Amino acid sequence: MKAAVWHGRRDVRLEDVPLPSAPQPGWVQIKVHWCGICGSDLHEYVAGPVFIPVEEAHPLTGLKGQCILGHEFSGEIVALGDGVKGFAAGERVAADACQHCGDCWYCKQGLYNICENLAFTGLMNNGAFAEYVNIPANLLYKLPDGFPTEAGALIEPLAVGMHAVKKAGSLVGQTVVVVGAGTIGLCTIMCAKAAGAACVIAIEMSSARKEKALEVGADVVLDPNACDVVTQVKALTDGLGASVSFECIGHKATAKLALDVIRKAGTTVMVGIFEEPSEFNFLEIVSTEKQVIGSLAYNGEFADVIALINDGRLNVTPLITGRIALANILDRGFEELVNNKDQNVKIIVSPELQVAS
Amino acid sequence: MKAAVWHGRRDVRLEDVPLPSAPQPGWVQIKVHWCGICGSDLHEYVAGPVFIPVEEAHPLTGLKGQCILGHEFSGEIVALGDGVKGFAAGERVAADACQHCGDCWYCKQGLYNICENLAFTGLMNNGAFAEYVNIPANLLYKLPDGFPTEAGALIEPLAVGMHAVKKAGSLVGQTVVVVGAGTIGLCTIMCAKAAGAACVIAIEMSSARKEKALEVGADVVLDPNACDVVTQVKALTDGLGASVSFECIGHKATAKLALDVIRKAGTTVMVGIFEEPSEFNFLEIVSTEKQVIGSLAYNGEFADVIALINDGRLNVTPLITGRIALANILDRGFEELVNNKDQNVKIIVSPELQVAS
Ligand SMILES: [Zn+2]
Ligand SMILES: [Zn+2]
Ligand SMILES: [Zn+2]
Ligand SMILES: [Zn+2]
Repeated sequence: MKAAVWHGRRDVRLEDVPLPSAPQPGWVQIKVHWCGICGSDLHEYVAGPVFIPVEEAHPLTGLKGQCILGHEFSGEIVALGDGVKGFAAGERVAADACQHCGDCWYCKQGLYNICENLAFTGLMNNGAFAEYVNIPANLLYKLPDGFPTEAGALIEPLAVGMHAVKKAGSLVGQTVVVVGAGTIGLCTIMCAKAAGAACVIAIEMSSARKEKALEVGADVVLDPNACDVVTQVKALTDGLGASVSFECIGHKATAKLALDVIRKAGTTVMVGIFEEPSEFNFLEIVSTEKQVIGSLAYNGEFADVIALINDGRLNVTPLITGRIALANILDRGFEELVNNKDQNVKIIVSPELQVAS
Repeated sequence: MKAAVWHGRRDVRLEDVPLPSAPQPGWVQIKVHWCGICGSDLHEYVAGPVFIPVEEAHPLTGLKGQCILGHEFSGEIVALGDGVKGFAAGERVAADACQHCGDCWYCKQGLYNICENLAFTGLMNNGAFAEYVNIPANLLYKLPDGFPTEAGALIEPLAVGMHAVKKAGSLVGQTVVVVGAGTIGLCTIMCAKAAGAACVIAIEMSSARKEKALEVGADVVLDPNACDVVTQVKALTDGLGASVSFECIGHKATAKLALDVIRKAGTTVMVGIFEEPSEFNFLEIVSTEKQVIGSLAYNGEFADVIALINDGRLNVTPLITGRIALANILDRGFEELVNNKDQNVKIIVSPELQVAS
């Protein structure tokens, strides 16, 4: 089959690989319909290896050095391993990407997204930029009848936003700040609104993303180049600050910004993947009784997202900025995202689509 | 009356001042029995002004430039202002030091310890290193019959520890790390044990404080000069890390240490007063889903502490390392604490005691 295989930095190859073997007990084989390109895929392409194991084989999957990318996907079950219950061939499913050991303390507590042996699909085990992929059945969620096929590829990033939103506690009636309107920021805006936030303030500099933020439901967009963001947030909140903020960039300076825009006793959920340390005085937390919570991936939120896409409260259409064939993943996928980052949100890829020249 | 008045750095004077005026409506006048010397008093003495307003009068109290220190006290009601209900002259009380406006958003939410106009007793309004002090009646807690008089001066620092402990959620059966065994660290150890923590690990370098930590109930004491603390905590917790830690020092390096000793999805409560920024990569929170919560002073915890001192579950005796007369507050109080910091925990001061020469 055709697949997009990571071999090294700037070395992702579209190549012919063997079909995955028949699914082992408890696993299924899925024919991929759509799979979205994620910032983390791009990161492996431009600056990898980040998460892909290259020195030692992954303890759970044995993967090392090469990996079929792609974790934001849905498709159709084509084969079931022994002992898989509750699923049948032909059913459409999306798959949580947090493959986990089931044995560590975190797994036993149900915190499988922080499993000691986490093997994220498409980074630590072969993923879905391919015609077929094998996945543990306990990570599958059925798509309801009538669920739009391409929306299946947006469930995963929306689950990231939903997990962050749920970490913050109830948002109903609250004013919320989302720092950064990239894919995860936009998904967080959508989930915060779906969770009843009265006012969502997005902080973003790129004009294309500012427009997108409003399109997906932000009530206000503030540009740090055009105003003092902390002053403006306070002006919008009776001088107090927002109840909750979400850091969705991962820049050393925006960690502090996310804390500065909330009121005392407010909560900041950190979602961004920080590459550098921040200079931060923890007195800012002590003297204000603020709270900081880390949020990583998701833990069961696929179900919430599927329900809200299905009933129309989450509309994924504005998030999709490209639909391409797997055969075009390098030129119209990775390179397009590298060159036109701000213009794009999610490019989704299908092995079933015709090649564009 | 005699009082210890802060005039400036290294300039605290024991002097004759007028009696406080008759208590205004809603306030009472208290004859002070015992008042403990706090690290913050010492800080104002050695490095102040820190919290004492010197440029502008405090918005709530009008205090500026001079202040009678002392906020960890109990005594006996001698006069009641108009409208004070539920209290009578002669009753013994302790007083929460968080004088607050009652009008700001935080006060209206019951978060009076982070009031926008907080006027902490003994720093932003005259305190209890004096024969008499006036206090709002809504901050008073009655001491039960038989409650040891000198224990009244320990309620306040224990309430700080209790507030931090309650911020962490349930500790019952958990392994907990307390970073620093100064007064607040020791109080936090005691409150964590009272809250059902199975194992409290104290981290401390001073040998006198290491002994005190064990005396007040720590199960293990680790010295960063003698071992790798993170490795040892993991060895004591099946390789995971503690569920909860409390940072009770306020040093830029121990903020990160407090986070390093907890397991993923664990909680660090920050209690120390940090003077310098830390270098901290927030990825350590994102990738582990750890949680950081600030804790400031207390919010109603006087009641909990009084109940547990009264039934014997909190034993304050090991915390008291000196009992001195108000007349000796400079030589046997502040200077003793400056010169023999590690040997002392709490020195308590009474205006009723005879002068020692
Ligand atoms: Zn992704
Ligand atoms: Zn696991
Ligand atoms: Zn104190
Ligand atoms: Zn207030």
